[in-house]
Amino acid sequence: MPTFTPPVRDMAFAIDEIGALDRISALPGYEEATSDLVGAVLEEAGRFGAGVLAPLNPVGDREGCVLEGEKVRLPTGFADAYRRFVDGGWNAVPFDPEFGGQGLPWLVATAVQEIWHATNMSFGLIPMLTQGAVELLSIHGTADQKALYLPQLVSGVWTGTMNLTEPGAGSDVGALRTRAVRDGDRYRITGQKIFITAGEHDAAENIIHLVLARLPDAPAGAKGISLFVVPKFLVNPDGSLGKRNDVSCIKLEHKLGIHGSPTCVMAFGEDDGAIGTLVGRENQGLALMFTMMNNARLSVGLQGVAIGERAAQKAVAYARERIQGTGPGRDAPGPIIHHPDIRRSLMTQRALVEASRALTYFTAARIDIARHAPDKAERAAAHALVDLLIPVVKSWGTANGVLVADLAVQVFGGMGFVEETGVAQHLRDARIAPIYEGTNGIQALDLIGRKLIRDKGEAMEVLLAEFRRAEADLAEQGGEDLARLRIELAAATGRCADTVAWVLAHQGDDPCLAGAAATPFLDLIALTAGGWMTARMALAAQRRLAQGDTDTPFLTAKIATARFYAEQILPRTAGLDVLVTAGADSVMALPVDGF
Amino acid sequence: MPTFTPPVRDMAFAIDEIGALDRISALPGYEEATSDLVGAVLEEAGRFGAGVLAPLNPVGDREGCVLEGEKVRLPTGFADAYRRFVDGGWNAVPFDPEFGGQGLPWLVATAVQEIWHATNMSFGLIPMLTQGAVELLSIHGTADQKALYLPQLVSGVWTGTMNLTEPGAGSDVGALRTRAVRDGDRYRITGQKIFITAGEHDAAENIIHLVLARLPDAPAGAKGISLFVVPKFLVNPDGSLGKRNDVSCIKLEHKLGIHGSPTCVMAFGEDDGAIGTLVGRENQGLALMFTMMNNARLSVGLQGVAIGERAAQKAVAYARERIQGTGPGRDAPGPIIHHPDIRRSLMTQRALVEASRALTYFTAARIDIARHAPDKAERAAAHALVDLLIPVVKSWGTANGVLVADLAVQVFGGMGFVEETGVAQHLRDARIAPIYEGTNGIQALDLIGRKLIRDKGEAMEVLLAEFRRAEADLAEQGGEDLARLRIELAAATGRCADTVAWVLAHQGDDPCLAGAAATPFLDLIALTAGGWMTARMALAAQRRLAQGDTDTPFLTAKIATARFYAEQILPRTAGLDVLVTAGADSVMALPVDGF
Repeated sequence: MPTFTPPVRDMAFAIDEIGALDRISALPGYEEATSDLVGAVLEEAGRFGAGVLAPLNPVGDREGCVLEGEKVRLPTGFADAYRRFVDGGWNAVPFDPEFGGQGLPWLVATAVQEIWHATNMSFGLIPMLTQGAVELLSIHGTADQKALYLPQLVSGVWTGTMNLTEPGAGSDVGALRTRAVRDGDRYRITGQKIFITAGEHDAAENIIHLVLARLPDAPAGAKGISLFVVPKFLVNPDGSLGKRNDVSCIKLEHKLGIHGSPTCVMAFGEDDGAIGTLVGRENQGLALMFTMMNNARLSVGLQGVAIGERAAQKAVAYARERIQGTGPGRDAPGPIIHHPDIRRSLMTQRALVEASRALTYFTAARIDIARHAPDKAERAAAHALVDLLIPVVKSWGTANGVLVADLAVQVFGGMGFVEETGVAQHLRDARIAPIYEGTNGIQALDLIGRKLIRDKGEAMEVLLAEFRRAEADLAEQGGEDLARLRIELAAATGRCADTVAWVLAHQGDDPCLAGAAATPFLDLIALTAGGWMTARMALAAQRRLAQGDTDTPFLTAKIATARFYAEQILPRTAGLDVLVTAGADSVMALPVDGF
Repeated sequence: MPTFTPPVRDMAFAIDEIGALDRISALPGYEEATSDLVGAVLEEAGRFGAGVLAPLNPVGDREGCVLEGEKVRLPTGFADAYRRFVDGGWNAVPFDPEFGGQGLPWLVATAVQEIWHATNMSFGLIPMLTQGAVELLSIHGTADQKALYLPQLVSGVWTGTMNLTEPGAGSDVGALRTRAVRDGDRYRITGQKIFITAGEHDAAENIIHLVLARLPDAPAGAKGISLFVVPKFLVNPDGSLGKRNDVSCIKLEHKLGIHGSPTCVMAFGEDDGAIGTLVGRENQGLALMFTMMNNARLSVGLQGVAIGERAAQKAVAYARERIQGTGPGRDAPGPIIHHPDIRRSLMTQRALVEASRALTYFTAARIDIARHAPDKAERAAAHALVDLLIPVVKSWGTANGVLVADLAVQVFGGMGFVEETGVAQHLRDARIAPIYEGTNGIQALDLIGRKLIRDKGEAMEVLLAEFRRAEADLAEQGGEDLARLRIELAAATGRCADTVAWVLAHQGDDPCLAGAAATPFLDLIALTAGGWMTARMALAAQRRLAQGDTDTPFLTAKIATARFYAEQILPRTAGLDVLVTAGADSVMALPVDGF
């Protein structure tokens, strides 16, 4: 079984053609992000991922993490690999050069991060959580907090966590009960948090917890939540480590997957309160969290893409190797890749991974524009599109991760159910992504509620216009090869437009309607958005071929994949509109005690 | 968290209304299978399953099976539970009274078996494999073989296995290499078999292996395979156990799920050859296997239904308990079952489990008719319908098992990813069912190839006529409540009919077409068949209500579920026809070296 090959060419293609790197590198601050540099970064990241992280992936799965007293031991090799990761500067890729970051665009950082998740999703979670802490402190931290924490978090010498969830407060984070009491210019935090990724481990000198808690006099619910920095070791003004703070991991969860990532129950203030400092203003904590949420959700969607790529590669390799039956029009037994039903599976995997990668990178590029474009209107437009697309990126990416890993397991047949082949691990690992960082149900509610209805369909209209533009480009330039894609994309876009209009017209009729329609609505938008991305990739491939690009197999494969997406994936949008416009009645008809 | 409640009322409803128990108990030999007796059997089976098997299910998952020397130790409690199972007569339910069986219809035995799989799928595999051995020997065994093995296999004092798969011979069983050499009136078997469920364990006195092997002078491929009985302990003519045969388990697989079931690598003839006797004639082994394949595949489809039921019950219980957010039109935080998106998930789980249960029971009843009806034409018609439906029952049931378990995990949110809640085990266990006993891809090829094309659409025409009859009944009796179901069932049936005609007309155009179209074709037929079953259940519920049946909540729930199936599941058939009629071009367009 060949090891993982980082899909560097696919990534570079998506960065250039979908992320429009030339446009991103024209933004102030991103001038160094040339195509050449990006290519070199991806190659190097690919080497580190495939060489260092991928071999540790099954080790992490087998060994898991161990809680010994208050300490958590990562699986063999993880702590060492993390130090090499930090030494290589990998943690710093997207961050501000003022604090030691490399200042590369999120578009590029996203591709780099995809490699970590593909090669070792458990490992990739450590920098992913640190990223959230860096973002929050960069935007909302005081000068002191920035000076104290950012350099070490940016380099990765220290890692970060997000402490939101409690036993009674998951999707409804406003229900949390962890308390913070003022103590001079600091606060003392008391309470318990669960599902804290990398809440304790042995790979970094310090761990900086960002903790949501409630002041004694805070308003009830979501408006009474404040955000605190609570370091594992207090940090002296000179940056040296002080005494151990009153925070510890008291339990590790035994999970379906990502065994290499410690999922901690954290106890704050078992003695005299964990010492923390306030980020932003009191009772504004939840709003602050939202500033990092888009990037965090994009990262989780990316995990789905990454695991999908990894599993799909395994499936192709196995389908090439496994001799079984002849396949149509062949005489002698041969590899199962010749069987059309296997081919359908492999093409489905490929088409979904490439489309959801493109959508993720497209959105990452919009984040760069929203932050760096000199023109305010341009920033605002990009921001609106990001807000709209994030729930789609998160949920479609993660759903595709699970689906592709599941298809890959099936290609392996009985060997897919045997843990030794490693493909089942991808399915187990992938399964967390539709759950955390807002379940996919929450994403669907976010899309139809905040992003469509509350926005009165404005941002959605922009997205639909993008779909139609791709359709017009296909009509103009696509030719015979992409004729079917044009037809199917037009049909799917029509379904989206009709459904959007129906939801906006009828959502007031029934308080249950939006919730009942949310999931098929998201599925419809996501599959169509994937068609839009696929169209843009195919058009770019055609253009490159016309311009004499000699990488013919790669570019014609993009066109073949687009045709598959047109014929075998886009038609699945048919009926999803009907599911939405059927309304909530049949969804809610059975009374609660009828179950 | 409440324990499992055997869905006895749903089972009885499906047995009476879909299996038409009155018709089955009118068949010669089945006179005793009255509704009262069946109700009592189900109640008793439910008590045994919920009381004895369900508590062992997490134990099996945690402990797994252990190979100690040549012996396999089942998880704590399994061997004892198996002895109680045998003592209770549960193994004998469907078998011939001549050999100690209870002679109940397969319709009833199927419902009973559902309880074993729902409460403990790993445990349920032991009698499931024995069932295959009993069937084969009952039909094809010599008088000696029957006398020697059947009484003990029927009672379950001995268990059976199916030894087909080898490392190089899975879906293509004709490629197997295990050798059998004549030695007087016996044979000596040499070779290795993999994925042998319950190939070795400590719950029975003897294990009777049915083994496919190849004689030295056998023709190549599938036509050169013979079937042998190879007992673990040779059996003396008086039925007492003789010496240990040359067959042993040399490895247990480490699997994604069903940890409580030993999946063995079996070595035959490491010394001087395992002694076996021939079943049927030489080189006819594969044909003999086909005689038990329908029942075996039905049992696997049933496992999907069973795990779906189990997971769906867990999801409902959690959704009732878990307080999070308010839900539309409510003031205070309440259980998540009030959220429409959760409700959609629970209704989907319910609708799919009930429809696939009905389809499984309907098919089981057809097996009874095919075997017991006095009229030859009636037997033949039932047999044709069974042959057509089996790949649908197997693949749709198992796909629904995975889908429902996946939806249930998602309802649990983060707790679904934590193994302690037990819902993840159902997902892991369920995942084997689409793989074994012919992968779902193989089922799809069977449906479109053998059952549709080779049959020139005859049996399919009968099935489509059944769909249309349900549609006509809805038009006549369904009234307003089921109007939408009539419309959607008619539309789905139309898609089936058009697709069937297209496949029959075009399958000769392209050798890859059938294989490329197989999976969406099966999905289309399956979803529509589920609609047909749902219609029949809803009509029966209406009729019972009209007749004054006082179990109103149960019966109106059937009608509500039917409405959900109509509005939220049947429309998913739209587009599947397009996937089929798009043909093979885009599926096969990317050359093998383009992946």
